[in-house]
Amino acid sequence: MADGPRGRVQGDKWRQVNKESQTSGNPLVLFMPSGKRGRFPVGTPILDAARQLGVYVESVCGGRGICGRCQIEIQQGHFAKHGIESRAENISEFGAKEHRYAEKRDLKEGRRLSCSSTVQGDLVIDVPQDVQVNAQVVRKAAINRVIERNPAIHMCYVEVDEPDMHKPLGDLDRLKAQLERDWGWSDLLVSQHLLPSVQKILRKGGWTATAAIHQDMESSRPTIIALWPELKNEAYGIACDIGSTTIALHLVSLLSGRIVASSGTSNPQIRFGEDLMSRVSYVMMNPDGREAMTNAVRQAINELTVNVCKESGVSPGDILDLVFVGNPIMHHLFLGIDPTELGQAPFALAVSGAVHSWASELGLAVNEGARVYLLPCIAGHVGADAAAASLSEGPHRQDRMMLLVDVGTNAEIVLGNKDRVVAASSPTGPAFEGAEISSGQRAAPGAIERVRIDPQTLEPRFRVIGVEQWSNEPGFDENAAGSGITGICGSAIIEVVAEMYLTGIISEDGVVDGSMAARNPRIFSSGRTFSYLLHDGAQKITVTQNDVRAIQLAKAALYAGIKLLMQKLGIDHVDTIRFAGAFGSFIDPKYAMVLGLIPDCELGEVKAVGNAAGTGALMALLNRDHRREIENTVNRIEKIETALEPNFQQLFIDAMALPNKVDPFTRLARQVALPQRKARENAATGDGRRPGRRRRG
Amino acid sequence: MADGPRGRVQGDKWRQVNKESQTSGNPLVLFMPSGKRGRFPVGTPILDAARQLGVYVESVCGGRGICGRCQIEIQQGHFAKHGIESRAENISEFGAKEHRYAEKRDLKEGRRLSCSSTVQGDLVIDVPQDVQVNAQVVRKAAINRVIERNPAIHMCYVEVDEPDMHKPLGDLDRLKAQLERDWGWSDLLVSQHLLPSVQKILRKGGWTATAAIHQDMESSRPTIIALWPELKNEAYGIACDIGSTTIALHLVSLLSGRIVASSGTSNPQIRFGEDLMSRVSYVMMNPDGREAMTNAVRQAINELTVNVCKESGVSPGDILDLVFVGNPIMHHLFLGIDPTELGQAPFALAVSGAVHSWASELGLAVNEGARVYLLPCIAGHVGADAAAASLSEGPHRQDRMMLLVDVGTNAEIVLGNKDRVVAASSPTGPAFEGAEISSGQRAAPGAIERVRIDPQTLEPRFRVIGVEQWSNEPGFDENAAGSGITGICGSAIIEVVAEMYLTGIISEDGVVDGSMAARNPRIFSSGRTFSYLLHDGAQKITVTQNDVRAIQLAKAALYAGIKLLMQKLGIDHVDTIRFAGAFGSFIDPKYAMVLGLIPDCELGEVKAVGNAAGTGALMALLNRDHRREIENTVNRIEKIETALEPNFQQLFIDAMALPNKVDPFTRLARQVALPQRKARENAATGDGRRPGRRRRG
Repeated sequence: MADGPRGRVQGDKWRQVNKESQTSGNPLVLFMPSGKRGRFPVGTPILDAARQLGVYVESVCGGRGICGRCQIEIQQGHFAKHGIESRAENISEFGAKEHRYAEKRDLKEGRRLSCSSTVQGDLVIDVPQDVQVNAQVVRKAAINRVIERNPAIHMCYVEVDEPDMHKPLGDLDRLKAQLERDWGWSDLLVSQHLLPSVQKILRKGGWTATAAIHQDMESSRPTIIALWPELKNEAYGIACDIGSTTIALHLVSLLSGRIVASSGTSNPQIRFGEDLMSRVSYVMMNPDGREAMTNAVRQAINELTVNVCKESGVSPGDILDLVFVGNPIMHHLFLGIDPTELGQAPFALAVSGAVHSWASELGLAVNEGARVYLLPCIAGHVGADAAAASLSEGPHRQDRMMLLVDVGTNAEIVLGNKDRVVAASSPTGPAFEGAEISSGQRAAPGAIERVRIDPQTLEPRFRVIGVEQWSNEPGFDENAAGSGITGICGSAIIEVVAEMYLTGIISEDGVVDGSMAARNPRIFSSGRTFSYLLHDGAQKITVTQNDVRAIQLAKAALYAGIKLLMQKLGIDHVDTIRFAGAFGSFIDPKYAMVLGLIPDCELGEVKAVGNAAGTGALMALLNRDHRREIENTVNRIEKIETALEPNFQQLFIDAMALPNKVDPFTRLARQVALPQRKARENAATGDGRRPGRRRRG
Repeated sequence: MADGPRGRVQGDKWRQVNKESQTSGNPLVLFMPSGKRGRFPVGTPILDAARQLGVYVESVCGGRGICGRCQIEIQQGHFAKHGIESRAENISEFGAKEHRYAEKRDLKEGRRLSCSSTVQGDLVIDVPQDVQVNAQVVRKAAINRVIERNPAIHMCYVEVDEPDMHKPLGDLDRLKAQLERDWGWSDLLVSQHLLPSVQKILRKGGWTATAAIHQDMESSRPTIIALWPELKNEAYGIACDIGSTTIALHLVSLLSGRIVASSGTSNPQIRFGEDLMSRVSYVMMNPDGREAMTNAVRQAINELTVNVCKESGVSPGDILDLVFVGNPIMHHLFLGIDPTELGQAPFALAVSGAVHSWASELGLAVNEGARVYLLPCIAGHVGADAAAASLSEGPHRQDRMMLLVDVGTNAEIVLGNKDRVVAASSPTGPAFEGAEISSGQRAAPGAIERVRIDPQTLEPRFRVIGVEQWSNEPGFDENAAGSGITGICGSAIIEVVAEMYLTGIISEDGVVDGSMAARNPRIFSSGRTFSYLLHDGAQKITVTQNDVRAIQLAKAALYAGIKLLMQKLGIDHVDTIRFAGAFGSFIDPKYAMVLGLIPDCELGEVKAVGNAAGTGALMALLNRDHRREIENTVNRIEKIETALEPNFQQLFIDAMALPNKVDPFTRLARQVALPQRKARENAATGDGRRPGRRRRG
């Protein structure tokens, strides 16, 4: 046994062994970061100890000491909390197999091969998790997240018996028998497409081969989905977020968890319709519309895959597992499902549960046997992207009450803690994304992204994407000359409206106060209403009364949705808020609260988490337990359809005010807004006007 | 519950119920033909009683009384052996649902719907088995075989909840939930190709639908493979034997077991090579050879499918399950596997175990979700056809020792009983099929199929395929004129050589006795050896010394193979012999024994069973238990490779004599041959010659 392969062994057998040894005075072994611990007889290989405890340690070669995937590190010292004195001599000495491996390949200082080292005393063992969530795509909060790996793909190296006329089992049958003997895989299925190549592969490898075995759910039979001659010491996966605007994709090593490349592109479906509903309309109006959009998104994914493979030198044939998330319409179009039903009540999803499929069925140019997993959708307007964001941020894992908001054309809202989770979608419309705003634009160079208005002078200063300086700082004009100043993006729309409110340019009801024109000509009449001139350049950038109304409507929808969920849970306070998505990444939480987008909360507890949906996809790719976690959570989530809630309309109307009539004057408003409005009042008193009085132009 | 759907319910639950009721004094119910019995409370629906006992009774509508698939009949009378008095009043009266069904459709006199009738007292119940094995394809012995059904396909009608915004489960998810509630299917998978059509189907059916669920092995997750709106009350399967010469295919109703159409065609691979080895050579010599042959056989199967569908008015889209058998090379080529390894030692199969696949992966034009099953291969020369023949004839089910022989280019030999089974292939060559014989030809009009030689005059008489009369009867010449007399087919080759032996024209060593030329000029010199002129027509039909040698070699190979297996089992006698295949169907067992093709056996115990491989395929199609049966049997069969057996060569040499040196003078030879040779001796004495003396020409 000492030199034989030690593969995956079925849980029951191990648990039994472990139960016996736990009762004895055997050394105590603690694995980090999982914290799983157990007692094992002296001489137990570390890899076996890990498996007995259900700690996932990769091993492709089955304990032959050649793949180097099972590396661990010993933490030395006294761990009082755990009652463990972990010392260097408590692990076996560096052995022959480790020397051999270290000579041939690179074995970092301090690293050991867990298949070839044994327990000699109490140990605290680090299982290195190489997962680095990419900072470019996921913002600070998510960096350094540790995703413990337990992928659905297992790479298993075997040495297969040669054919024997006395025992005429087929080549594939002997391969399966060896996978059962070495790795404990019984009852294996085989992907049909492998049958024609099995014989050549085994002969090419001199009767050694590595099988990729897929088993996602325990209730599904494990399946050989790919086969290579000799030791194949790498396998990759893809985690992809199909947004209606952007498709973002990570290429990940399934054996180390490392993101080896990331790429993103515009969703080419935009040419069929800018927003979701216009894409549904396109399908309804065009007989080939669904197929065209399905092909477009699949082709974009294939192009991104080629890009990340080129960048990292990975062969697309080494991609074996793919996880996709997206809103319900993106999800359906990707799967080739007509989304028409999602465009009308009762917004029926064709499929809401997790989808298991094959890359080849979806036209994806990766390994022919590669599998595909889509996270479940929560409801007709709350998709697999919201499920993935929930998996990432985990309201269902919290003791405290967490609000998770992803703002797009709809705001997807999830609220809850480990006891109970509710979710809804609220029709914010595209105002927060800069659409329906007179000077609105997407976040791109030239777009105004930050705004401040001087409460005394009502003069603005702002920052433009791509320019370091504020608009009132030296050097701004030269730097802004390149791209020009072309519009206002989502984050700045929030800020400018909030600043207009704080400076009294708009009232609590959202009316631009025409009387302010006397104080600064930037407030000017435009027909029956007034506007605010933010920038007077080649392109005039103004905030109109309609713009303010659009933001009021959007924020009212968002806030009313949140409030509805809070009412469902019977709470009047959330402990922590997570903003997912691009919009959330750029808005300033303080302004979101001033304007009443979100309920009152400690500012330090409001965090932007970037592409949480992408992070969730990554988690589901690297650990199939996370798939079960989100499937169970989605089953448990109470789905609230705002359109069916009698309260919603009133909550919406109440939320139109600035900040909100619902919370007449929030704590933050008292902290932030009051002093500012006070200052304004003082200034106003100077020119004889009462603050806050409404006038119509 | 009385009016609700009653579908498939998991075994454990039922077994528990049944255990309780068995201890009580409840009525006793016996199901035929399975003989399964149990006690059930008065009022138990018959369908439930059947399910509790594991008796397979079809029901598509789940007990709503609309599909009519669950029909049964009550046997009335006193069944002393079972201690049951089964009376008409022991079943509930004809109820409303049965009346409704009988009005709308045809319910034969005496038939009842088991979902809608209940146990009222002791009952003997007939579950009608509509399986009629087609007499055209399978010979007498197999007609009226009862194949109890338990197919891998289940048709399940459900009424699905409409979409509900309060519970936004997807349409597919609600369908699955209903299939679990009504039919007990948990953990259902869904074929990817159905996702785009689920919504339209459910709406078209007004939220009723019928799902085809495939579950072959208990360890595999059940899968929805097809879906129709409303009640779909039919489902078909195909059982196909891919012979190297002929492809034969049955279209079968999976719900009744009835063969609705059968068809056969030449294997189009013949154009690449007449026999198996020349086809392997073709693959080795031609880069596209494998693909061309794979395409040819798949296309032929598609054409046959179109034929049987047209003939029976069945839509190919209603074909959901397909079972294929064939020798290893046919099996590999059908699956797209290069058969080169099978052409050379160690004759390694790519896959020997049963193969589960998808019709769409194999290019078969049936329902897109249809499944394919191939029986396991026994060894490199003993294929899935031999496994299917074994399943059909069942040596592994016998108390007595059964020899099963399928003669083709190789003879596949299976020998054993329920304790032990051995199998081998013996290289008979194509002589038995008429190849390598000077006047040999395939069985077709014009071919001589029966031969008798008068021991006194040495004059032959024979029968020709397509002609009623023997050649010496009035009217023969006129009737034979049409096709002519063109050659000798396999069955007649055996007979003519046996008759030549019985009449002394050839010696025990197989030498044509030139001295016989003096008695009849039909024995004539042809160079250094003598021949026998069987027919002197437009085409001279002779039996040459080489022909006799070829038959000697073939029969020696067959007999040596059989003898080797008998030695392995330590037996010198077999109880019963089954000849499978076309050759076996036409040869006269008596002549086979005279010539020493097969060991001694009671003539009444030697049976031709026709296309036993096809029957086995049919069994595997209709009952998945038969799949497990043959998989387990093949695992258990001891495979003997004749080429590796040191005894084989000597057995082969010994078997060259007529009948055989191995059994110096068999019982049959004593019974049949001795008197004939005696008569010949008497005749011979008349012209002064000693019988049996060898002379060389």
